[in-house]
Amino acid sequence: MRSTVTFYLCYLLCLALGLACVACVCVWNSRWRGGFAWDGSSLQFNWHPVLMVTGLVVLYGYGAVVYRVPLTWGQNKLPWKLLHAALMLGSLIMSILGLCAVFAVHNAKNTPNLYSLHSWIGITAIILFALQWGVGFAGFLLPCSPVLLRKLLKPVHVWLGGSILLLTTAACISGINEKLFFVLKGNVTYSSLPPEGLLGNSLGVLVIAFGLVVLKILSNIKWQRPDSRPGEIAYTPLQDENE
Amino acid sequence: MRSTVTFYLCYLLCLALGLACVACVCVWNSRWRGGFAWDGSSLQFNWHPVLMVTGLVVLYGYGAVVYRVPLTWGQNKLPWKLLHAALMLGSLIMSILGLCAVFAVHNAKNTPNLYSLHSWIGITAIILFALQWGVGFAGFLLPCSPVLLRKLLKPVHVWLGGSILLLTTAACISGINEKLFFVLKGNVTYSSLPPEGLLGNSLGVLVIAFGLVVLKILSNIKWQRPDSRPGEIAYTPLQDENE
Repeated sequence: MRSTVTFYLCYLLCLALGLACVACVCVWNSRWRGGFAWDGSSLQFNWHPVLMVTGLVVLYGYGAVVYRVPLTWGQNKLPWKLLHAALMLGSLIMSILGLCAVFAVHNAKNTPNLYSLHSWIGITAIILFALQWGVGFAGFLLPCSPVLLRKLLKPVHVWLGGSILLLTTAACISGINEKLFFVLKGNVTYSSLPPEGLLGNSLGVLVIAFGLVVLKILSNIKWQRPDSRPGEIAYTPLQDENE
Repeated sequence: MRSTVTFYLCYLLCLALGLACVACVCVWNSRWRGGFAWDGSSLQFNWHPVLMVTGLVVLYGYGAVVYRVPLTWGQNKLPWKLLHAALMLGSLIMSILGLCAVFAVHNAKNTPNLYSLHSWIGITAIILFALQWGVGFAGFLLPCSPVLLRKLLKPVHVWLGGSILLLTTAACISGINEKLFFVLKGNVTYSSLPPEGLLGNSLGVLVIAFGLVVLKILSNIKWQRPDSRPGEIAYTPLQDENE
């Protein structure tokens, strides 16, 4: 009982931190960076942080913890599996749109793509995420996938899921840090910590806090769905497990 | 048996990646950044990445996985506990020296301290690390600490240990990214990906790979020392558990 209450407190914190991240990145780019467009200008770039924080961090984190909600444990697992896959697909699509936004701006300005450490880590995270989604769909949702494959796949899927979150968090932090150094120059420097610098730093702190809460929820064995704990049989997709 | 072989492969990878991180950050700062001094010049700054990567990432990671080595399981835990505390103390001292290096350079150049997101996350990691070391020493090494306290403390200690590694990884990646943008300007820009840019990016990739391997080792329940697994009694410090 105490464990369930602690879970829901952590889950509420996770939801609240995620919403705070989205609000913060939207306010930053609409109020301080001039808003949004899709025309190759710097206003198109502003979609990049918004889509990455909202999709690759927040929606990804929400999708990762779906199975941990105890309310869902007494129910058929299939709808939750579909919700997990749908949230992750939404996250992946937003990440790809976020990539398109930055590539379009770079190409319009003849700036090379994918040279910085931030971009290397970000693109690695998205490639791994796309592979993870494809393999996860084939392994856990297609009825023809053998039970043995699922059993072998599951610990890799869980570990890679957490690792992708670490990569996206590191990519976000380096991206926000880089952007603040780029834009806060001249009269108002980053080192004087103007309101925009404070807001950007706060966004970074929120992203880190969100990542830590998600990893905390994922790492607690007591909060795993009982039929998915280590030592249990591999779960069977597309079957009503309560029938 | 298979689990032990997999552990040692992961452990060797962890050791090798750690050494590669140290070699890479030393070569970068000695060959491309002009070497080292302790005189308030930019050569003093070069100690900052070297001490942070070597101390706060590599030594910290090595210290975190000490208990996981199966060879040590049949032995008295106390020497390994002292080794864990000593490696972590070494890591903490190197981190504080790394902080001193950057503060001295900033102060000599009248540059403000602790304004960037990189610095906010880095200083948070070091403050949490210092608290973690102090509380860990009092709770797990002082004979007077009650068993109940240790039992309550242990999951927090383990979770905070992993969280600090996530913070230090994010701080390292943002720091390397920021430094490369700062120094690769003018004729040889970062966007042309010169050898120094490639080396810095490779260092970042190595740091991420090291962090992922350490977290993989820490998260596998089968690789936990048998008397430290969840559900076992809290371990008793300063006692020979085999007697």
